[in-house]
Amino acid sequence: MSGTRGLKLLSTLHADGRLIVELAEEAFPAPKGNEVLVRVEAAPINPSDLGLLFPAADLENADYSGDRVIAPMSDAALRAMAGRVGQAMEVGNEGAGTVIAAGDAPDAQALLGKRVALIAGGMFAQYRLVQAGACIALPDDVTAEQGAAAFVNPLTALGFVETMRREGHRAIIHTAAASNLGQMLVRICQEDGVPLVNIVRNEAQVAILRDLGADIVLDSSKDDFAAQLQGAIAATGATIAFDAIGGGTLVSQILHAMELAAAKDAPYSRYGSDSPKQAYIYGMLDTSPTILTRSFGFSWNVGGWLLFPFLQSAGADTAQRMRQRVLDSLTTTFASHYKARISLRDALARDAVLTYNARRTGEKYLIVPN
Amino acid sequence: MSGTRGLKLLSTLHADGRLIVELAEEAFPAPKGNEVLVRVEAAPINPSDLGLLFPAADLENADYSGDRVIAPMSDAALRAMAGRVGQAMEVGNEGAGTVIAAGDAPDAQALLGKRVALIAGGMFAQYRLVQAGACIALPDDVTAEQGAAAFVNPLTALGFVETMRREGHRAIIHTAAASNLGQMLVRICQEDGVPLVNIVRNEAQVAILRDLGADIVLDSSKDDFAAQLQGAIAATGATIAFDAIGGGTLVSQILHAMELAAAKDAPYSRYGSDSPKQAYIYGMLDTSPTILTRSFGFSWNVGGWLLFPFLQSAGADTAQRMRQRVLDSLTTTFASHYKARISLRDALARDAVLTYNARRTGEKYLIVPN
Repeated sequence: MSGTRGLKLLSTLHADGRLIVELAEEAFPAPKGNEVLVRVEAAPINPSDLGLLFPAADLENADYSGDRVIAPMSDAALRAMAGRVGQAMEVGNEGAGTVIAAGDAPDAQALLGKRVALIAGGMFAQYRLVQAGACIALPDDVTAEQGAAAFVNPLTALGFVETMRREGHRAIIHTAAASNLGQMLVRICQEDGVPLVNIVRNEAQVAILRDLGADIVLDSSKDDFAAQLQGAIAATGATIAFDAIGGGTLVSQILHAMELAAAKDAPYSRYGSDSPKQAYIYGMLDTSPTILTRSFGFSWNVGGWLLFPFLQSAGADTAQRMRQRVLDSLTTTFASHYKARISLRDALARDAVLTYNARRTGEKYLIVPN
Repeated sequence: MSGTRGLKLLSTLHADGRLIVELAEEAFPAPKGNEVLVRVEAAPINPSDLGLLFPAADLENADYSGDRVIAPMSDAALRAMAGRVGQAMEVGNEGAGTVIAAGDAPDAQALLGKRVALIAGGMFAQYRLVQAGACIALPDDVTAEQGAAAFVNPLTALGFVETMRREGHRAIIHTAAASNLGQMLVRICQEDGVPLVNIVRNEAQVAILRDLGADIVLDSSKDDFAAQLQGAIAATGATIAFDAIGGGTLVSQILHAMELAAAKDAPYSRYGSDSPKQAYIYGMLDTSPTILTRSFGFSWNVGGWLLFPFLQSAGADTAQRMRQRVLDSLTTTFASHYKARISLRDALARDAVLTYNARRTGEKYLIVPN
């Protein structure tokens, strides 16, 4: 397989304020030692990929001609991302494909011809040359599409439950809960008997989660949302929330409702209750500022949550247990659903870009590079 | 001393939305067993007292006639404080005075005639009947005024340094740093060799801290504040901040500057640096919302910080070590300064209320009830 050539997507922020996303051709040498060459067959476009692919670019006013996107960036965004100026960045955290060539080492040879999943970065490409250790062989009855999203969402959803247990909470609140990740979390919590308060933004999303059998699904667009939220927190004892949205007042509303539930039968204190109230922001669906009213005393914490630091802090045994659980249930608990399958070239078309970059729940795209 | 009678301040929020702060007379029985009767000689008005005394009341439009304040409250504030409606609340966390009567128990008898400091609540009063264990005997050369603020500010400032060490940070950022508390923190950090970045809001406050020998004092009203802050963080390695203000964008600015310092020589990551960034909000000088731009990656935490939960989590040995350090240096490291000394009755006058409730740095009041 020496001389394999393939296309990949590159995103480059130029010092003049233009973001250029384009196809580039790459030539691969024959794999050596522990290396394997993977033909990528499916790679999901996750929100975490979009932050690298089209960070804060003005995509409405971009130029989409000629198999590349040239998008203007604001001065503020350019300054905020000075660290990546001039670097042609490969994109795509995870995906799945087939090992079509392997180095001499036994670990590499053992994967030859196998369908594998990998979280190696640069997966929006036709081929990837990686170390054998980066690959997980998929079960025979799992397709590349089914295995393409075996890492980010499944491990994140499992990570929420691990974090809840580790920090001594007993129920979870989740926002943007109708997402692929949210649906996985519903199934995990059902399997594990963890009470889960799902917050979504419209009736259609309520229906998605009701169909999965979710017990508590709250629609934040409803007038009685605050009362419903307080009731759900009182019923479940949820004192930890995971928020995919980031901007706006929802995190503050959740902490406020937790405080009302905690203070209900406690004596008045000007400092608020001493019940812990934790919110983790793990996404940026809304990039506007997080507004905290602090109407919830002083016993609260808001912080960022990321998968890789979590896995590191959780330790190798926990991470391995989580990975095995995903592999065992890839087509059930951890199944993903896609709005459309597109080629690398399709991924540069105006309509596709504007759709998948909107990060709308239920509108996830899968790149099929070959 | 049976039959002692004295005045105390009471703050009552009524269901009709009026906050009434008034004097009430209290009669004290002779102390029994472990009880002691303390004649209160000095009690500071701390920001934490104001949250109970005049919570969000409209003091500009209050009625100050007749030794009481009647202030209107907004519906929102009334709802937020529903838990205290109808309760006549005693005010004043801490103070100092003389034990003028004691119960039979040896611990109580040992304090008779002694000058003591106590953090017992209800200290805006002429007398307090408390358990002997709530009192700390002051050294002979320490006056009641010098001992009146031996708890809240000193233990909070020491608590910041303990928290820094416990969480693995090596330098501190402090806002509203020219306060009595801030001045103590400057002296503690000098004694302990802890780098401290002081943030104040005007030139006069810069001068106060420079006079104390503070190394790094930044004026947030200056145009180059952002650059100065980033430089100070780079120079000290500060990754933890304690903020007395709460509202607005300062916490966000600090986290942003920490992130710029951390990312300076690191490879670009769309998730931001993996350097921990911690901010604790321990005050409410600005009650408006905290605005977090989240322009600092995902490795960050913002939370409330309160003295009593901290002392509980720190354990008895640490708390005792901290208290002893305060007693040993009450007139030096932990000295407080007051703008004015007022009686209980003075504390209900319009000019005094509007001045001390403004919580301006350097304008702390001391109540001298007898």
